[in-house]
Amino acid sequence: MSTLEAVLSRIDQDIDASVERLFALLRIASVSTDPAYKEQCRAAAEHVAADLRSIGFAAELRPTEGHPVVVGKADGVAGPRVLFYGHYDVQPVDPLDLWKTPPFEPRIETLPGGRRIIVARGACDDKGQAMTFIEACRAFKAVTGKLALPITTMIEGEEECGSQHLFGFVRDNADEFKLDLALVCDTAMWNAETPAVTTSLRGLVYEEVKITCADRDLHSGLFGGAAQNPLRLLAKILGALWDDDGRVTISGFYDGVKELPPDIKADLKALNLTAEEFLSQVGLKFSAGEKGRLVLEQITTRPTAEINGIVGGYTGEGAKTVIPGQAMAKVSFRLVGEQDPEKIRDGFRAFVRARLPADCKAEFANFGLAPPLQLSFDNPALSKARKVLAEEWGRKAVAVGAGGSIPIVADFKHVLGMDSLLVGFALDDDRVHSPNEKFDLKCFHKGIRSWARILDALAKS
Amino acid sequence: MSTLEAVLSRIDQDIDASVERLFALLRIASVSTDPAYKEQCRAAAEHVAADLRSIGFAAELRPTEGHPVVVGKADGVAGPRVLFYGHYDVQPVDPLDLWKTPPFEPRIETLPGGRRIIVARGACDDKGQAMTFIEACRAFKAVTGKLALPITTMIEGEEECGSQHLFGFVRDNADEFKLDLALVCDTAMWNAETPAVTTSLRGLVYEEVKITCADRDLHSGLFGGAAQNPLRLLAKILGALWDDDGRVTISGFYDGVKELPPDIKADLKALNLTAEEFLSQVGLKFSAGEKGRLVLEQITTRPTAEINGIVGGYTGEGAKTVIPGQAMAKVSFRLVGEQDPEKIRDGFRAFVRARLPADCKAEFANFGLAPPLQLSFDNPALSKARKVLAEEWGRKAVAVGAGGSIPIVADFKHVLGMDSLLVGFALDDDRVHSPNEKFDLKCFHKGIRSWARILDALAKS
Repeated sequence: MSTLEAVLSRIDQDIDASVERLFALLRIASVSTDPAYKEQCRAAAEHVAADLRSIGFAAELRPTEGHPVVVGKADGVAGPRVLFYGHYDVQPVDPLDLWKTPPFEPRIETLPGGRRIIVARGACDDKGQAMTFIEACRAFKAVTGKLALPITTMIEGEEECGSQHLFGFVRDNADEFKLDLALVCDTAMWNAETPAVTTSLRGLVYEEVKITCADRDLHSGLFGGAAQNPLRLLAKILGALWDDDGRVTISGFYDGVKELPPDIKADLKALNLTAEEFLSQVGLKFSAGEKGRLVLEQITTRPTAEINGIVGGYTGEGAKTVIPGQAMAKVSFRLVGEQDPEKIRDGFRAFVRARLPADCKAEFANFGLAPPLQLSFDNPALSKARKVLAEEWGRKAVAVGAGGSIPIVADFKHVLGMDSLLVGFALDDDRVHSPNEKFDLKCFHKGIRSWARILDALAKS
Repeated sequence: MSTLEAVLSRIDQDIDASVERLFALLRIASVSTDPAYKEQCRAAAEHVAADLRSIGFAAELRPTEGHPVVVGKADGVAGPRVLFYGHYDVQPVDPLDLWKTPPFEPRIETLPGGRRIIVARGACDDKGQAMTFIEACRAFKAVTGKLALPITTMIEGEEECGSQHLFGFVRDNADEFKLDLALVCDTAMWNAETPAVTTSLRGLVYEEVKITCADRDLHSGLFGGAAQNPLRLLAKILGALWDDDGRVTISGFYDGVKELPPDIKADLKALNLTAEEFLSQVGLKFSAGEKGRLVLEQITTRPTAEINGIVGGYTGEGAKTVIPGQAMAKVSFRLVGEQDPEKIRDGFRAFVRARLPADCKAEFANFGLAPPLQLSFDNPALSKARKVLAEEWGRKAVAVGAGGSIPIVADFKHVLGMDSLLVGFALDDDRVHSPNEKFDLKCFHKGIRSWARILDALAKS
């Protein structure tokens, strides 16, 4: 029996105890955004640190201006030094009355058809997911007396409120955390049968633009036909942000956007996700994105522009024949590849200014400037992880982008110079952030086994 | 001495008494929009009716569901039967603390330079203007014992709150008021030296459009790039409402729009109003209107499209990466010539629908559908009025359009089949609807003389 086989066997024997340990963590109401739960957040951090110590980590609570970070360090047998990132905090539980059972009293429910799920706030996000990694470490320790790799943990308590103090913590302690590879367990599978590695996260530029024309609101009867209207300008300018093929028309917008490697794209194509299937969940049918692209590219590996809000003029009941003096829009961009947030911001501002009459004014404010993240497709950790995930799940693991941002992971790249391998076991129906959050027992169990396989594979050169 | 000369002379002799009579009417606080002033509105109507009786009219208060209409009838010497329209109600006076003297205590103020003004709520709009006509009638009666023409008055009490009960009153009594010509005194001069006849009023189509894409608000990280965004659609669609020359692009929009007669246009051109001069009063410089048009055409005799309001998505502080499910816009059109409001409404709706993806929905609501009004340039009343106004003021009277609508005047045309001759003596600085409303004594005096000349001219075949 190989070491890995012994570790996997140990995981299977220990699964009931693994669930009990997860339940113990789930019982701590570590809601980070509400100051009333400050002590519970600390208790959760202490609980995680104690658990890490029990499997050989030197673990401590490192203070921030907010909730502490659980930093654990353990030597391993061989291989790259890895940083494991997760979080012990959870979302608020409201509306509480929609929960079938109390959110901090975890339970196993068996669904019609036999699927067994763990129900509690944090069951998936991120206590359940983080524990898949810790339980894998525990099995290694039990079987071999050591971990497979030298591992540092960074398990934070403010992910659900923007990781606001973690950025400074990472910067201030960059030398300590500048390791070889980050492992993150906070993402989803492709579906219940198909594992996934998240190879990219989109960046974000968020701009607000306020356009001023006349120095007051005007009567459209008296001034209509001569006076400029900021809503008309916004419509003209923002309406020109996309060409007829759905491409963004800002000069240089696609600089640094790369095509997917053909094999990765072929894998995505083989998933056969149609726009109609993807959009049917929200009552839509046709993609509004770039023509000639897979919908999966459109929502993950292609950049976008969106108008997130517009307001101006009269918006109440009935009619008011006003030409407003001012109007405002919020416009954001999702970035990919090597797109530079500052260049995109400047490009947008230039785009607006170039279309503005000389007697009108545009004022800008920025509310987001996060670079995109891309795991290099030739990072050996990616192929290793995909290979062993396929062995565990019996299906090829897809390398897929995520549409949203995890800003701290971008900092691992840009501040610590380290790639991140994002592997997670969430499913689309996990009700993350919603009442009756759940995590499939199968995802938890096979998640632990998956991490054991990944650690084993990474340890081999 | 001709009859007219005698009438004008009488007006000059009687001017102090004319001012006193106007003051008596101004002292009645006939604020129509506030139910607290209901009795004063009635008192003003009674006052006007009594005054009309004193100069030979058979005058009575005709009830409506709102404030009564003063209908007076008097035979004249000869000529067309005319309907005189004016209103005895006034705007509210707030903010009261900005008035230098109480709004219903009329007074004469002499400005630096010697200009004398009548200050009171309603001094111009419309008590002062309406009294120019009644005083002209009084002078005719005093000199000749009769009026120059058969005259019916329709002096209403709800103009400042939308004339809401007058439309039905006119329709219900159409046979009674179907005369040869309407005379209206509620408009402005070109400037303090230059009289004007208002030959057109723009119509109005006011539409609200609500666009629905997804059946809920979406996260732009998850759906951005595939899901349609109603704000993007609004920007695209409404941004396409104008071409690069500022012309409205709705199919058939300019059907029924006519060029001005060359002599009328030459007169407008001679007024030398530049876009920069017109727009400087509101902090603008460059016209947003149709290229190659006089600014005076743009604001009066050319049709327009305006976005009066847009709202959708997140409009609060900071960032929210939402793709809204719905967004709303209010869009209105000013119409001229023979443009058909229903066709414009339908054309707009078709314009939107043609640009809507098949999985998105547009819902429309109409809040205005008023036809434009155009006095025929070859109506002899127009040339007669312009000729005698020039004689009174020593300057050519311009035939100019008004940018806004006076819906009841459109009904005179469309319900009663009668042209309206709009002659008024307001100036741009009269502070109509604002504190310290005024009417130049000179405008009042020469306004009376102007109506005497017009009545005399109309009486001659």
